Amino acid sequence: MPEFLKLLPPAAALQRFLQALPDDLQTQSERVKTQDALGRALAEAVTAPSPLPPFRRSTVDGYAVRAEDTFGASASQPAYLKRIGEVQMGRAADLALRAGEAVTVHTGGMIPDGADAVVMLEDTQSVAQDEVELLKAAAAGQNVLLAGEDVKAGEVVIGAGSLLRAQEIGGLLALGVTEIRVAMQPRVAILSTGDEVVPPEAEPEAGQVRDVNSYTLSALVERAGAIPIRYGIIPDELDALRAAARKAHAESEMVLIAAGSSVSARDITADVIQELGPPGVLVHGVALRPGKPTILALCGGVPVVGLPGNPVSAMVVAGLFVTPVLRRLLGLRGPAWPATLTATLAANVASVTGREDYLPVRLEMSPEGLLAQPVYGRSNLIFTLVRADGLVRIPAEATGLEKGERVEVRLF
Amino acid sequence: MPEFLKLLPPAAALQRFLQALPDDLQTQSERVKTQDALGRALAEAVTAPSPLPPFRRSTVDGYAVRAEDTFGASASQPAYLKRIGEVQMGRAADLALRAGEAVTVHTGGMIPDGADAVVMLEDTQSVAQDEVELLKAAAAGQNVLLAGEDVKAGEVVIGAGSLLRAQEIGGLLALGVTEIRVAMQPRVAILSTGDEVVPPEAEPEAGQVRDVNSYTLSALVERAGAIPIRYGIIPDELDALRAAARKAHAESEMVLIAAGSSVSARDITADVIQELGPPGVLVHGVALRPGKPTILALCGGVPVVGLPGNPVSAMVVAGLFVTPVLRRLLGLRGPAWPATLTATLAANVASVTGREDYLPVRLEMSPEGLLAQPVYGRSNLIFTLVRADGLVRIPAEATGLEKGERVEVRLF
Repeated sequence: MPEFLKLLPPAAALQRFLQALPDDLQTQSERVKTQDALGRALAEAVTAPSPLPPFRRSTVDGYAVRAEDTFGASASQPAYLKRIGEVQMGRAADLALRAGEAVTVHTGGMIPDGADAVVMLEDTQSVAQDEVELLKAAAAGQNVLLAGEDVKAGEVVIGAGSLLRAQEIGGLLALGVTEIRVAMQPRVAILSTGDEVVPPEAEPEAGQVRDVNSYTLSALVERAGAIPIRYGIIPDELDALRAAARKAHAESEMVLIAAGSSVSARDITADVIQELGPPGVLVHGVALRPGKPTILALCGGVPVVGLPGNPVSAMVVAGLFVTPVLRRLLGLRGPAWPATLTATLAANVASVTGREDYLPVRLEMSPEGLLAQPVYGRSNLIFTLVRADGLVRIPAEATGLEKGERVEVRLF
Repeated sequence: MPEFLKLLPPAAALQRFLQALPDDLQTQSERVKTQDALGRALAEAVTAPSPLPPFRRSTVDGYAVRAEDTFGASASQPAYLKRIGEVQMGRAADLALRAGEAVTVHTGGMIPDGADAVVMLEDTQSVAQDEVELLKAAAAGQNVLLAGEDVKAGEVVIGAGSLLRAQEIGGLLALGVTEIRVAMQPRVAILSTGDEVVPPEAEPEAGQVRDVNSYTLSALVERAGAIPIRYGIIPDELDALRAAARKAHAESEMVLIAAGSSVSARDITADVIQELGPPGVLVHGVALRPGKPTILALCGGVPVVGLPGNPVSAMVVAGLFVTPVLRRLLGLRGPAWPATLTATLAANVASVTGREDYLPVRLEMSPEGLLAQPVYGRSNLIFTLVRADGLVRIPAEATGLEKGERVEVRLF
């Protein structure tokens, strides 16, 4: 199919798009409570205000000792130390240990001055109220968590542009950082076009279908950490689309237009996008299936994507070209590791050289391991994706994939 | 380490836990708007009220024809048909096609009665206003989407217990299903214990540390689709913990207790859980690192998990034992495909036979492909996980993993 040779491969198209984006694309930031920041993007590096742990802690229940007092101790030749007290949990160790002395400590408790190791309770015997028998020697530092071993005061603990997961929330709160600055969630305008499209709550008449793309795209945008704003269904008519697109462009950080699928509807979309501002359309058409009629544009500093009207194509294109831009808007740095699973392809799949294909597959556990079962269905059929767990990429240079090949499945 | 031989392997512990859960564990259901249901669990199967697409549609711009009228047509021997009109987008095809006739159709438009194929515009030439020249033959059904090809009326399109992703939302709305019944989000009580633990907003005194587990566990519970309810920090004291646990047990669908890490704190936790209701503790201790002192219990129909106090252990245990129960509470069926990436281990890692280990790793792209770099740090250190992208499971039978081995990284 020579037509694909004139089109950019998806990776090159994405690169052209990302490189055109202004350096200051990132949204403004806002302060939020750390405990409400799950899934947000940190806008400002956080420095540890104090070390963690703030004091030396025992990692076991046992006796804090001076390691040198335990040297050579064994079950047959125990060492005997004088027990001078106990460190209560949550209290300062207000006693100092001298040669020949031991102090009872609990897991997480503070290590008293003078001690440099903890002998586990299991390796000791209590001889009398004030004497303890050690059946094992301890090396200096053994079972002791040093102050600052997790993080040091002044250390950058979480960099700007980090995605905040459960552990970041916990770590920040452990440091007493109860408010942080995060990227504001970008507003993403979503327009669906098509004279045949009606809202989901309408009863379609003959020749009409209900809107799908506004809602699948909203869901994907929401999952990526942005705020979808639906501008409704726009007729396939230049003036109407131009007016809606201008309004969306003025009110949002990114604009998505799921175009009607006829050639004339696509032409209107490209024209309207081109008029939104310079430099305009950067990529028109990608060597990709589904998703060939993709438009990537930057208009007056706002990224704009024209997506094919077919629901499956729209979702594939959103995954490939919208999500990376949302990461830039959020200021997220570092790679986004895609969630994948390796599986064995369950059937031969044909493909056309020169075009990157994305094949929906359903995962099935079999005695031979995980199978990826192709889900056939045209890209007009949204339930193709309902039946699928993920997509398999078929590289442009391949003429297909063979049954039994190991494939990476990108989970939805 | 023979101590691990007395403990259940994680998979067996989970199986014992899940098998003990009552069949009717699932939460009640509630009706919500479909467009707000992203990430929820469908409680009731949805049947298609009408076929999708509701009528035969063209997948291209071109001419609707009777395939038999095109047989033998080629560039050198075109077929000539009479063009009798055009089907407007969003309108019924209110004309019927007879032998020798063609009708202009657009992508997504309705196919008129009598036609059974569409010839692409590119394969035609317009001879006169009312005549079209076909340069290619069309097989019956070509470029035609049949009514009901996506789903048939009466077909179960999404089963009870399905997780609602972007495509399910879009598919349901395409069918006009604007309200659905989903599982109510289970309330999960989270208790942290420890005389040394203070809230994040407090300035810890000597011997005190801030609460981490309440917040990491809340985040994980939220991500799993449930509602975390924090019961605060409970002193390591039988009566206090008993009172808090009883209240939590009465008010929630699941209870998590992140126990103080000392042996006595753990003993109190196990005693309190045992008293909450029959059958009580099912598993006490798992051959797992980190996470050995895990308690799995069912108390009067409510699943209760006692998690180790170390933040890293608590997160590993939550992933292994809490998430699967939340899926049961939500009524989610079918396997939960874990998000993984295959990478090359960047260093030798030692492990003890008889115990399943979870090793935090950081992913790095190298010229040789994706590397999994072990992140060392004791399980007391929450920033160990901040520095990591996922966990590598080291099987119980292994004595370690070798540098250069291919490993599956479970992404956080």
